[in-house]
Amino acid sequence: MKFVKNDQTAVFALGGLGEIGKNTYGVQFQDEIILIDAGIKFPEDELLGIDYVIPDYTYLAKNVDKIKGLFVTHGHEDHIGGIPYLLRELNIPIYAGKLAIGLIKNKLEEHGLLRTTKLNTIGEDDIIKFRKTSVTFFRTTHSIPDSYGIVVKTPPGNIVHTGDFKFDFTPVGEPANLTKMAEIGKEGVLCLLSDSTNSEVPNFTMSERRVGDSINDIFRKVDGRIIFATFASNIHRLQQVVESAVLTNRKVAVFGRSMEAAIRIGQELGYIQAPKDTFIDHHQINRLPSNEVVILCTGSQGEPMAALSRIAGGTHRQIQIQPGDTVVFSSSPIPGNTISVNRTINLLFRAGAEVIHGSLNDIHTSGHGSQEEQKLMLRLMKPKFFMPIHGEFRMQKMHAQLGVDCGVEPDNCFIMDNGEVLALTNDSAQIAGKIPSGSVYIDGSGIGDIGNIVLRDRRILSEEGLVIVVVSINMKDFKIASGPDLISRGFVYMRESGDLINEAQNLISKHLNKVLERRTSQWSEIKNEITDTLAPYLYEKTKRRPMILPIIMEV
Amino acid sequence: MKFVKNDQTAVFALGGLGEIGKNTYGVQFQDEIILIDAGIKFPEDELLGIDYVIPDYTYLAKNVDKIKGLFVTHGHEDHIGGIPYLLRELNIPIYAGKLAIGLIKNKLEEHGLLRTTKLNTIGEDDIIKFRKTSVTFFRTTHSIPDSYGIVVKTPPGNIVHTGDFKFDFTPVGEPANLTKMAEIGKEGVLCLLSDSTNSEVPNFTMSERRVGDSINDIFRKVDGRIIFATFASNIHRLQQVVESAVLTNRKVAVFGRSMEAAIRIGQELGYIQAPKDTFIDHHQINRLPSNEVVILCTGSQGEPMAALSRIAGGTHRQIQIQPGDTVVFSSSPIPGNTISVNRTINLLFRAGAEVIHGSLNDIHTSGHGSQEEQKLMLRLMKPKFFMPIHGEFRMQKMHAQLGVDCGVEPDNCFIMDNGEVLALTNDSAQIAGKIPSGSVYIDGSGIGDIGNIVLRDRRILSEEGLVIVVVSINMKDFKIASGPDLISRGFVYMRESGDLINEAQNLISKHLNKVLERRTSQWSEIKNEITDTLAPYLYEKTKRRPMILPIIMEV
Repeated sequence: MKFVKNDQTAVFALGGLGEIGKNTYGVQFQDEIILIDAGIKFPEDELLGIDYVIPDYTYLAKNVDKIKGLFVTHGHEDHIGGIPYLLRELNIPIYAGKLAIGLIKNKLEEHGLLRTTKLNTIGEDDIIKFRKTSVTFFRTTHSIPDSYGIVVKTPPGNIVHTGDFKFDFTPVGEPANLTKMAEIGKEGVLCLLSDSTNSEVPNFTMSERRVGDSINDIFRKVDGRIIFATFASNIHRLQQVVESAVLTNRKVAVFGRSMEAAIRIGQELGYIQAPKDTFIDHHQINRLPSNEVVILCTGSQGEPMAALSRIAGGTHRQIQIQPGDTVVFSSSPIPGNTISVNRTINLLFRAGAEVIHGSLNDIHTSGHGSQEEQKLMLRLMKPKFFMPIHGEFRMQKMHAQLGVDCGVEPDNCFIMDNGEVLALTNDSAQIAGKIPSGSVYIDGSGIGDIGNIVLRDRRILSEEGLVIVVVSINMKDFKIASGPDLISRGFVYMRESGDLINEAQNLISKHLNKVLERRTSQWSEIKNEITDTLAPYLYEKTKRRPMILPIIMEV
Repeated sequence: MKFVKNDQTAVFALGGLGEIGKNTYGVQFQDEIILIDAGIKFPEDELLGIDYVIPDYTYLAKNVDKIKGLFVTHGHEDHIGGIPYLLRELNIPIYAGKLAIGLIKNKLEEHGLLRTTKLNTIGEDDIIKFRKTSVTFFRTTHSIPDSYGIVVKTPPGNIVHTGDFKFDFTPVGEPANLTKMAEIGKEGVLCLLSDSTNSEVPNFTMSERRVGDSINDIFRKVDGRIIFATFASNIHRLQQVVESAVLTNRKVAVFGRSMEAAIRIGQELGYIQAPKDTFIDHHQINRLPSNEVVILCTGSQGEPMAALSRIAGGTHRQIQIQPGDTVVFSSSPIPGNTISVNRTINLLFRAGAEVIHGSLNDIHTSGHGSQEEQKLMLRLMKPKFFMPIHGEFRMQKMHAQLGVDCGVEPDNCFIMDNGEVLALTNDSAQIAGKIPSGSVYIDGSGIGDIGNIVLRDRRILSEEGLVIVVVSINMKDFKIASGPDLISRGFVYMRESGDLINEAQNLISKHLNKVLERRTSQWSEIKNEITDTLAPYLYEKTKRRPMILPIIMEV
């Protein structure tokens, strides 16, 4: 990095600033780069047909010899989903907690990358030393087990990355290691990178234990079957469901690929503990009385192909809603999913189920700390410089204000963009330059082969449809040999639009003949004439602007 | 209606049940039909390119001779937006309050229907009498002035339709007429149709007056320009902005077509009252000190073309964000708009504005009554039969429960679907049959010419794109004369996919030659061969399934 001096530590993000998703951070001192997380982002609606978004890895590919390893804070997709794509460009070792390693293994196996990748399971007490830098960890609480904050020790000072966190004082798993955080703060934090997701939420995020109480209440009250939908990765939540089931003499049947995997991995690693006969096979459900059954499934976000959506729509092979069923959404919809969640809830009600959802019932809590928890982190770490990460701009901005409220100098707070590089000495910090940091779209197996032109075309096609004009022209005598024929898709239903088509054909013929009379052999001229004739005609008749594709054949 | 007896009153909806939008209700006794409202619905995301959705008016068109008139509860689009489309099929008189008439006039003028339509302005004391039925009104409070509930008196009994309502005891305009509602209840209500929108919200909806206090607080505190975005139709809100502006010595500049229209109509009808020089022209903004300016604009839902979105994106011709600007979102995003509202807020923050939004600031309140208000309506009307309307299924269901809580017999609550007909005598009610009630899609000027096939095509095109294969074949010797050529849109960027294209062309040629050797002249066979060859090849190479369109020319 030519704009960073030799005695400076560079901190940057390729993703995770100004957005929620594709978290990818770097800490570089001279020729040593510590990477933190490699996430994906799920695309917003206007990215038609795009499956995932990953960051531009150009800078990393160019500096692969400097990268010491990828350090993973926890196993959520927005922190590990990019790993297979990253590894295709650079083969680097990975360091992560127990559960994250399990999930990454699964992922690498699917992509045929497991054999070639060096995976290291870390614990809280590990110290990973390199020549000039070293990495240590501190346990946090979040909505997935084995979440860690990361400390990168560099000669100018220590850089702390919180990962995603809340302070749950009564968690289901291990509590956050406040003592170690205090020690890290005492030792001195040059720069803190802290999770901004809930910086607009006042107060303290509800404990996971409170959710457990609510689940217990529901399990005690309900007389029929319970269909329980939640995030598969929230393994502590799954354990609470299992505990409530055992307490109320219910058996648990698990549906949905990711839920089955979570229960399997959770049991292997000891996070899911249950008496031996707690889990039952799908075919056993109907042999038990309704009040002895829990169906634990995916689909709490209304995902169309998930188990719960198919149950709601009546297309699930094994489960039909029956009177007395109670469906619990132990989740809150992310903004883009509200409509599909609502639709699923309505379908379930229509099918005759009771549905428990919404914040009133205390059946879900966020994995991210609210303002008081963010302030607690700031007070523990007492950083000289502060960089709010993982959140939209407005959240970073609010978080910076909390930093100031907790004693960080206003000029020492950096609300940054992806690609911007913060250069730190032991007593100064400034944004020193920018590295490539765009978004790369993944559609099917293609990485980055979808650009703005393709997306623009998809948008037009999706809203207005397409009209193809096929005409063959005899270039010896400059006459139309056959056509013009019109073919459309996504425009109007052609069989019912005979007049529109006929009139359009006549119009194009008339104009084309005029152009051909000039004996032009410029195909672009002929094509433009077709488009310029047809577009205004169709707009006048339909108030729509379909994409027009002239196809000309020479005979 | 053959399934309704001669002594029964039929109540039905063509829209507004199981959904929020396209409200269209009917009350029929023998040969007299009273229509209530004719709304549109804004399409959900999967209706690609569709502008609006209206109900199927088939039943009305067939019974036009029986329809006595369209009675409008208030002037929101989901209650009046369908009128131009309805009037194209049937010319019927319209009865509505003062403001709704003003808005309908505007709409009919745009559609060239004003001259031929009979518009009647009603007041609360009017009685519209027909041979067997009559219609009266009662004033309610809602987020638009001149909102009425409607009573249809029929020989079996009185049918009450609340329209959209809340009970705002300290409204900006006239309060709801509780006395008249009590009298209507005392006279006897056979069936109540009541607004279910907020049936999942406990307690009482905040008064509009409280919003006024918050606006005042903000106007007092802010030192720079205020950019205030809200719904144009919420004319009471606009008046409160005007009052706060006057109080704090600010002038108001109005931006956005619907906002300008609202201010004009509001002034004409006396709802907007301000000293003469309160409103200023656009060019005067920059002549005033920042703390004397309010910019009142559209775009509180993040609509891409609205004034505020253009200001946020830096593409507004007259307004650029400057330091010290405060933007107020006096609104709450409807579910489908959350992401675009968030994007607008982030852009405004990035541009340097302060942004006030969200429920914490009391700068917006719903126009719909919460549970306690719905119960108050039920207690005033004391209906024998109850039909929750205007809401998703889950809201209708919850509202029915509130009905039972307030003394309606459980069997007398009817959670119905669009098209279902409730047949009522003076002491009985049952769902007696169904009339056509589908959704009709409007895209551009086309009404109902977009069906499932076109939408399916749009969906495929939007997610996977299109590949056209053009080949000309000499049918004398069964040889390929030219091609195959591949043209794509929305699939991959062709210039960078040379190998993929070449290989696909070779593959198609090879397969086509084989088919042609059999000397087939079945074009469908040739087309199928192209699709069946290309689709698996492209899927293997890209994991995408674009639409494939073979175009074959005979030479």
